[in-house]
Amino acid sequence: MATDEKVAIAEDSKLGGARSAGLVETQTWAFDDPPLALECGRSLSPVTQAYEIYGELSPNRDNAILIFHALSGDAHVAGYHTPEDPKPGWWDVMVGPGKPFDTEKYVVVCANIIGGCKGSTGPSSVNPRTGKPYGPSFPMVTLGDMVQAQKRLIDHLGIKRLLAVSGGSMGGMMALDWAVRYPDSVASVLAIATSARLNAQGIAFDEVGRQAIMADPGWCGGDYYGRSVPQSGLAIARMVGHITYLSEEQMKAKFGRRLQDRESFGYDFETEFQIESYLRYQGNSFVRRFDANSYLYITKAIDYFDLANGHHSLVEALERVQAEFLVVSFSSDWLYPTGESKEIVRALQANGIPTTFLEVPNAYGHDAFLLPNEQLAESVSGFLANVQQRVRQHAERRGI
Amino acid sequence: MATDEKVAIAEDSKLGGARSAGLVETQTWAFDDPPLALECGRSLSPVTQAYEIYGELSPNRDNAILIFHALSGDAHVAGYHTPEDPKPGWWDVMVGPGKPFDTEKYVVVCANIIGGCKGSTGPSSVNPRTGKPYGPSFPMVTLGDMVQAQKRLIDHLGIKRLLAVSGGSMGGMMALDWAVRYPDSVASVLAIATSARLNAQGIAFDEVGRQAIMADPGWCGGDYYGRSVPQSGLAIARMVGHITYLSEEQMKAKFGRRLQDRESFGYDFETEFQIESYLRYQGNSFVRRFDANSYLYITKAIDYFDLANGHHSLVEALERVQAEFLVVSFSSDWLYPTGESKEIVRALQANGIPTTFLEVPNAYGHDAFLLPNEQLAESVSGFLANVQQRVRQHAERRGI
Repeated sequence: MATDEKVAIAEDSKLGGARSAGLVETQTWAFDDPPLALECGRSLSPVTQAYEIYGELSPNRDNAILIFHALSGDAHVAGYHTPEDPKPGWWDVMVGPGKPFDTEKYVVVCANIIGGCKGSTGPSSVNPRTGKPYGPSFPMVTLGDMVQAQKRLIDHLGIKRLLAVSGGSMGGMMALDWAVRYPDSVASVLAIATSARLNAQGIAFDEVGRQAIMADPGWCGGDYYGRSVPQSGLAIARMVGHITYLSEEQMKAKFGRRLQDRESFGYDFETEFQIESYLRYQGNSFVRRFDANSYLYITKAIDYFDLANGHHSLVEALERVQAEFLVVSFSSDWLYPTGESKEIVRALQANGIPTTFLEVPNAYGHDAFLLPNEQLAESVSGFLANVQQRVRQHAERRGI
Repeated sequence: MATDEKVAIAEDSKLGGARSAGLVETQTWAFDDPPLALECGRSLSPVTQAYEIYGELSPNRDNAILIFHALSGDAHVAGYHTPEDPKPGWWDVMVGPGKPFDTEKYVVVCANIIGGCKGSTGPSSVNPRTGKPYGPSFPMVTLGDMVQAQKRLIDHLGIKRLLAVSGGSMGGMMALDWAVRYPDSVASVLAIATSARLNAQGIAFDEVGRQAIMADPGWCGGDYYGRSVPQSGLAIARMVGHITYLSEEQMKAKFGRRLQDRESFGYDFETEFQIESYLRYQGNSFVRRFDANSYLYITKAIDYFDLANGHHSLVEALERVQAEFLVVSFSSDWLYPTGESKEIVRALQANGIPTTFLEVPNAYGHDAFLLPNEQLAESVSGFLANVQQRVRQHAERRGI
C-alpha cells in the first residue's frame, strides 16, 4: 500500500492512538474467461473490478479481510487518494493502523461491486460488443453475483481462505452470502446493521426511489449517457433513502422544526425547514457522484436478497457454514432493525455456530455503523484478534 | 339528511347493530365578506366550502359535532351519495345511526378543507378575478386558516357551541387548533392519531412528496390545469405517504416478500413484489381523484402546524382551553407516534384540563384510525355520551 508522510496522521484518542491508512490507490483487475454466470441466467464478460488493498499479506496468507461496501459506497474504504483529499474513505474510522480493522495486523481488501459506478463493470460501463454504455441492457445482477465476482478477485490475489468477511447494511448481506456460498473460504463473518433479507418496508422505499428515477424524463428508458441525467429523480431517491438512514430521534435532535436561514415562515414552496435543506443537499450532491442506473440495479439486488433463497429456511441455509460470527445491530436502526439481526443469530445458534451478538444502544439510526462508535470498535477489534488467534492455533496443531 | 330505503342497511355486530347513515348530499356554502384573513398575510374571497350534515340538530342546538378530515379526505364522512355507490364515506365505521358518532343522538358536520380539491375553494378553483384556476397563485393556507373558514360555516349553521370537534391525523391537529382558537365554542375534543406538531421525519416525507410533484414536467410550475397532470409525481408522493401510513409489522403480514402474479424473480424493473404492486396501485388510483397542487398546499399546511406557534410552550398554548379531551393513539403508528399524543396529554394535564388518554394496541399503523376498532369505538361513544350528559346538566343548572 502506498503511504506518504504528507498525509496528516489522524489521531483519535477514543481509538487508542489510531492513525490514518495514508495514501492509497484504487487498482483494477479484469477477467473474461470463464464469463461470470449470473443468477438471472445471463452472463457477464469482461468483468472489471476496482479494489483497494491496505496492509501486508502475511507469509502464510492468513490475515486477509474482505470488506463489502453498502449501497452508495465504493472500494475506497479508508485513507486518502491524494494529500489534498478533504475526506478519507467511507470507513476510515474503522480501517487503518491501530484501528479495529488494524492494517498493521491484517490486510484489508475492498472492491467496488459489479453493477456499481465506481470503477467496476456496471450499467455505465462500455459494452465491448456495442462500443456504447450498457444502460438498460446491463444484466440484472444479484448480491450473490457481486460476491461471486469478488471471489474471483480474492482467488486472483492468491488468498485461499479469508480471516474475515465484513460489511454493514448491504455489505453485511454480502458477508452472509459469502459464508454460505464459500464455507471453506472464510473463518469469520462480521455482519453489521444488516439482515438475512430485506423486509417489505425496505422494498417499498427502494421501489419509491426507482419510480422517481424512471419517471424522470432525463432517464430516457435508461439510455441517457451522454444525453441527459435523471437528476431530480435520483435526488428524490436519495432523499427517501436518507430519511431511512436516520432515526426519528436523531432527526429531531439534529433538525427538529428549526427553520433554515429565516426567522419566520415564508409561506412558499422554497426550503423553509432545516430538514428540507439537509435532504435537498443530500439529494443534489449524490447526483454528482452516483449513476442513476446503478442505483436502480443495486436497489433491485438488495430487494432480491434473501439468504434463505433456494433453501427451506434460514436455519437450513446456514447448515454448511463453518465461520464464526459477530452480529451487530443498532437500537435506533429501523431500516435493518435489531429483530432482524436476532433472526440471523437464532438461525446461527440453531446450527451450533459460534455467534457473538451485540446491540449497540445508539440514536443514530441505520447510519450509525458508519460513525465512530466505541462499542462497535471494541467488539470488532476483540472479535478479530480472537479469530486470528484461533486460526493460528488451529494451523499450528495441523502443523502448517 | 336524505335517506333511502334502497341503501342496504349495514349491520355490524361489533358495533351493536349500527346502521348506515344512508344517502347523503354534499352541500356548499360560500362567503365573501369579510374575506378570510390568512396567516400568510393574504386574504381569500370568495370562499366556498363543501360540507355534509348527518342527523338532526337538537332544539337547543347542543348536539353538534364537527369532524375534520385528514390529508386526502373530504366532506363525505359516512353514508352514500347514490344507491349505486360501491363504497361509503371515509369514516363510515364511526359515523351513523348506532355508531360511535351516533347520528341518532348527534348532528355530525364535516366540511372539505380550503386548499383541498373536493368542493371547497383550493388551487384548482377558478379565481373570479382572472376567470382561470388559481394554480400556484393560490395563497398558502394553514390548518388554522382552514379552521377559521369552518368556524364561519358553523356560525352560518347557527351553532354557537359544538358538543365536540374531532379528527384523526391532520384532522386531529385541526380539532386541537379549534379548541385553542375558539375556547368558548366547543365542549370537547377528540384528538385521534395526531400530534401538536409534525416532527422532522414527517416534514421530511412531505418534502419528498412535494419534490416529486414539482419535479414532474407535467406540473408546469403549478399551472397545469387543462394542459397536463403531474401524474407520476403525485403517484410517487402518494406511495411515500402510504408507506408511512402502514406499520412495518402490518406490511410484513399483508405482503411480506411475496411475489405478484409470478412464481420466481423476473430480473427486470417491472412489478415483482406484492408490496410494489400495492404501492403502484395506490399511487395511480390517487392521481385519478386528487389534485397535485392541493397535495402541495395541504402538506405545507401540516408542516407549518405547531399548536405552540405564537406561544412560549404547548402548556401555555393550552391555557385558555375549556374543553375536555379524549386523546387516542395507536401503538404501531410511527408517523404520529404515541409519544406525541402523550406530549399533548401532559400539556393538558399541566393545565388541569380533564383528559382521557387511550393507546390502542394495534398493528395497523397510522391508518388504524380509519379502520373498524372496538376500543376506539367504545371510547368515542362513551366519551361523547358523558360529555353530552355534563353539558346538559350544566345547562339545566344554569336554567337554560
